[in-house]
Amino acid sequence: MSKLAYLGPQGTFCEAALRILAPDAEGVPCPNVGAALDAARRGEAGGAVVPLENSVEGAITQTLDELAWGRPLLITGELLLPVEFYLLARPGTEMRHIKRVITHPAAHTQCRGFVERELPGAVVVAASSTAAAAQEVAAPGSPYDAAISPAIAGEYYGLVQVAAGIGDRSDTVTRFVKVSPPGELPEPTGADRTSLVAYLRNDHPGALLEMLSEFAVRGVNLTRIESRPTGDGIGRYFFHFDCEGHIADARVGEAISGLHRLSDDVRFLGSYPRADQVATQIKPGTSDGDFSEAAGWLSRIREGRV
Amino acid sequence: MSKLAYLGPQGTFCEAALRILAPDAEGVPCPNVGAALDAARRGEAGGAVVPLENSVEGAITQTLDELAWGRPLLITGELLLPVEFYLLARPGTEMRHIKRVITHPAAHTQCRGFVERELPGAVVVAASSTAAAAQEVAAPGSPYDAAISPAIAGEYYGLVQVAAGIGDRSDTVTRFVKVSPPGELPEPTGADRTSLVAYLRNDHPGALLEMLSEFAVRGVNLTRIESRPTGDGIGRYFFHFDCEGHIADARVGEAISGLHRLSDDVRFLGSYPRADQVATQIKPGTSDGDFSEAAGWLSRIREGRV
Amino acid sequence: MSKLAYLGPQGTFCEAALRILAPDAEGVPCPNVGAALDAARRGEAGGAVVPLENSVEGAITQTLDELAWGRPLLITGELLLPVEFYLLARPGTEMRHIKRVITHPAAHTQCRGFVERELPGAVVVAASSTAAAAQEVAAPGSPYDAAISPAIAGEYYGLVQVAAGIGDRSDTVTRFVKVSPPGELPEPTGADRTSLVAYLRNDHPGALLEMLSEFAVRGVNLTRIESRPTGDGIGRYFFHFDCEGHIADARVGEAISGLHRLSDDVRFLGSYPRADQVATQIKPGTSDGDFSEAAGWLSRIREGRV
Amino acid sequence: MSKLAYLGPQGTFCEAALRILAPDAEGVPCPNVGAALDAARRGEAGGAVVPLENSVEGAITQTLDELAWGRPLLITGELLLPVEFYLLARPGTEMRHIKRVITHPAAHTQCRGFVERELPGAVVVAASSTAAAAQEVAAPGSPYDAAISPAIAGEYYGLVQVAAGIGDRSDTVTRFVKVSPPGELPEPTGADRTSLVAYLRNDHPGALLEMLSEFAVRGVNLTRIESRPTGDGIGRYFFHFDCEGHIADARVGEAISGLHRLSDDVRFLGSYPRADQVATQIKPGTSDGDFSEAAGWLSRIREGRV
Repeated sequence: MSKLAYLGPQGTFCEAALRILAPDAEGVPCPNVGAALDAARRGEAGGAVVPLENSVEGAITQTLDELAWGRPLLITGELLLPVEFYLLARPGTEMRHIKRVITHPAAHTQCRGFVERELPGAVVVAASSTAAAAQEVAAPGSPYDAAISPAIAGEYYGLVQVAAGIGDRSDTVTRFVKVSPPGELPEPTGADRTSLVAYLRNDHPGALLEMLSEFAVRGVNLTRIESRPTGDGIGRYFFHFDCEGHIADARVGEAISGLHRLSDDVRFLGSYPRADQVATQIKPGTSDGDFSEAAGWLSRIREGRV
Repeated sequence: MSKLAYLGPQGTFCEAALRILAPDAEGVPCPNVGAALDAARRGEAGGAVVPLENSVEGAITQTLDELAWGRPLLITGELLLPVEFYLLARPGTEMRHIKRVITHPAAHTQCRGFVERELPGAVVVAASSTAAAAQEVAAPGSPYDAAISPAIAGEYYGLVQVAAGIGDRSDTVTRFVKVSPPGELPEPTGADRTSLVAYLRNDHPGALLEMLSEFAVRGVNLTRIESRPTGDGIGRYFFHFDCEGHIADARVGEAISGLHRLSDDVRFLGSYPRADQVATQIKPGTSDGDFSEAAGWLSRIREGRV
Repeated sequence: MSKLAYLGPQGTFCEAALRILAPDAEGVPCPNVGAALDAARRGEAGGAVVPLENSVEGAITQTLDELAWGRPLLITGELLLPVEFYLLARPGTEMRHIKRVITHPAAHTQCRGFVERELPGAVVVAASSTAAAAQEVAAPGSPYDAAISPAIAGEYYGLVQVAAGIGDRSDTVTRFVKVSPPGELPEPTGADRTSLVAYLRNDHPGALLEMLSEFAVRGVNLTRIESRPTGDGIGRYFFHFDCEGHIADARVGEAISGLHRLSDDVRFLGSYPRADQVATQIKPGTSDGDFSEAAGWLSRIREGRV
Repeated sequence: MSKLAYLGPQGTFCEAALRILAPDAEGVPCPNVGAALDAARRGEAGGAVVPLENSVEGAITQTLDELAWGRPLLITGELLLPVEFYLLARPGTEMRHIKRVITHPAAHTQCRGFVERELPGAVVVAASSTAAAAQEVAAPGSPYDAAISPAIAGEYYGLVQVAAGIGDRSDTVTRFVKVSPPGELPEPTGADRTSLVAYLRNDHPGALLEMLSEFAVRGVNLTRIESRPTGDGIGRYFFHFDCEGHIADARVGEAISGLHRLSDDVRFLGSYPRADQVATQIKPGTSDGDFSEAAGWLSRIREGRV
């Protein structure tokens, strides 16, 4: 059974993601994203599961930056995990008893409607994570009556669900990725995603347009683009991308090669099956067959066989 | 004397920025960026000064999101403030006495080299801000020997500088903006910047390329682009932009009009002098004179006077 | 009754086009396209009808060049005339009598199949035009038995149709345009075409791509593009364009204004109803209403009313 | 000694071009461009020399169309030949004797200033070519006093130069190409040109922009573009291109492959040294070395070696 590092403590959404992405793995909780990735880099774990972006909060910039620098790691899978909050308490607690609640501030923000409607007058105290909040409630002599946490935290700390699905939006989702040390890539499935990081040459005006053109001209759709500072001053960025397709696809490979040629550096972060399993739509003239037919044609005409 | 809200408490880099951007204003510290902007929205202050991006940490996403939603506010000025850290202590403290340090974790990260080299063995404790750290050190009976804070915090809390410029990088900069309720825009200076937010229509593949083309075809350079989630699911973004020039410039106005036509919504966030005073380079054929000459020409030919 | 100059002599396809484009006009035959346009320029005729392109032969370069230089004229209408050839002879002539045929070489080319099949052994002699060929056959003592000409030439010269529709392709078409001295433009109809000529600035690499981008970014489709030499050396071109829409349309006007700004010169050649009456498809965000709404929005935000 | 077909009769500019392009070849005069190319196709000659474009008249459309259809031929060389006209007459003729001049109408147009100034009152009669005009003057009992022709025609027909360089413009140039049956391509020289023909798929709006983008994104400059009718109706075109570089260059090969993928058909017309010997400027990131480095990088990352 392999070990996978994750963003702890035990009972986080990240651990819930890990259980789905790798049901047989042993989870190793780490205090932050950097520590989880470093555990994978140093071989203390076979890989790691970390959050990449959230549909409300946006990119997890710590993850973006940790993947962009340091020893390379490859994303080998992704998961879209609905963010479902629960009101967890010690067995026997009823809603009307709950006066003091503990949770992470972001969770409080996302459950504000429930708290105001169902727990008027309750005090909400900040914890360092939703899992830590559950741990606090479970502690002997805890001053807290309930925690707002993921379901998995209740299992760990022996709490019961006083209320379920208490977030104000039911459609919030976090995207988690599984990363591994460099090695064989997942096979193309026809519904893949590729992630990469590009440091543009000179960062001249129009560089971003050029970069997007490398993808557009080969019919490759970008699904995410994030700018991050290089650290060399305001106005100096590098870019995190996701595009549709697998680097083994001819059109994706040629686009990324083109990006590589016009960049100071490109870091490949992996090609892996899309969590939503939506098959890539292939623009006419850009299938692998089209590329290979064109390559054969080019070889012939280069030899003068027209 | 007008009031300006800022990200408090007293003694933050944000207050230092406010003193430069509006030396005569009375600062009103607020607990977070949202509160500062709301004070300006509700008229409790004449405006606000908030951080927009940092050359190491990147965009301050809370500011991006607060400006994108809610009652509109306009950016009327910007400042690039070097991030200079100081080791502050009560008068009489010497370096060798310092065993317990308090600061914000981000400041700790940025001064790690100094701490390891000059304060080996010292314990570093987390505070909610670098200004709050100074306040803690100044408190009677404080368990802390020193704070890592901006210089301005020392003034407030009666601390002295035991060491100056202790950040590991000397070139870190934060960009602050002054925002005001809607009203007359700053005059064009020839070295201006324009900020805006765009919600693309349908978010179709190629939409970002189309958006950049609206700027490129009118010779307008983008200097910053950030994607933020709309909240409607992974893969749904809106975009924060900065471009060179003033919306009063013909080429900028036409580009933003074009962006407006192809977007579900565009929010104008202001046109204001660039902090670095670099004059906008104008591509041939895109000056105000070129636009007005072309408009006259078009009018004539529309009347058949060719 | 107004006079219109045309490419003579009497009995040409050009005269047939004129009769359809302006049934009430008096036709004035001219020896070449330049002479017909000059008649319109000098006011000897109220306008002219000339061929612009043919679906087999391509652009009529003499017309392109004559419209690009000299006193401006405006295209006010167009016609797509099927090129239908007839075998014309003096009354009483039968197919089996025909041994000597006269026609213009291009007409010979286009009827080669008929001649080889139906008139094996016949000699084909070159005339300066298909109408002149008919005139030759009609002359007393003519050495020719038949002419390959348009039907209209038979009417003029008292010849009968021995065979009809003898072209090898039944779908060949010539596009004729009616030009007039500058004056009020035809009203927009929703199914219009606009013609123009552009002399690019410096003719730098990428200039053509920039030019096309001016149209693409405003959703205007180009339907024809021809390069012509400026006369200043191999590799120096100017361009003849047709685009969909009327210059009174906001998107077309802005595109052409943009083209004007990046060109050394743009000559507007007219906006007029399309012969095929295909309504212009308007890309979302580029209707006149979209442009006017965006202009209002821009005015408001320029005044700070966001 | 090899044979090369050319556009006759003897004494044309085309023969002058052939003598420079292939000094040792035996010239075979042909009545038109099609006949010259067919001689090369059928092996009656080892190749052909034909005019492709003229700096005043533009493209020689017959050549464009003859190269686009029929058995493929490859351009293996080009020449820019100044168009220098001479007034040629029988020995003993003086300027004041010249009352009747014969020449091709295009030559008459280009020498109109000289004729009006130096030969006022002279009659100018049309010949089928400038070489044929010289032949007419040399014929016993000729009714003509002089021909306007290239110098080479004088040599053939025993005429003397009464006046030299009599064109109104001194810089008119015709571009001739040498074509051969398919076979080994000329070696790349660093100052090459590539010619091709593309039939766009569906000819949809924006197809031309897409086609140009294939070149732009690989940093390949187009130096000539001509539209020609496919014959399938007004508005249906195919395109003749020249671009800088040799098809053996990685960037040119990839661009043309891309064009091939999005076209119904692409016909390669050859890669050959530029007559002006201007070395191709290579945009950063698009040299052969850059392409090969990128290909190696792509291979490594496809194997997960990041």
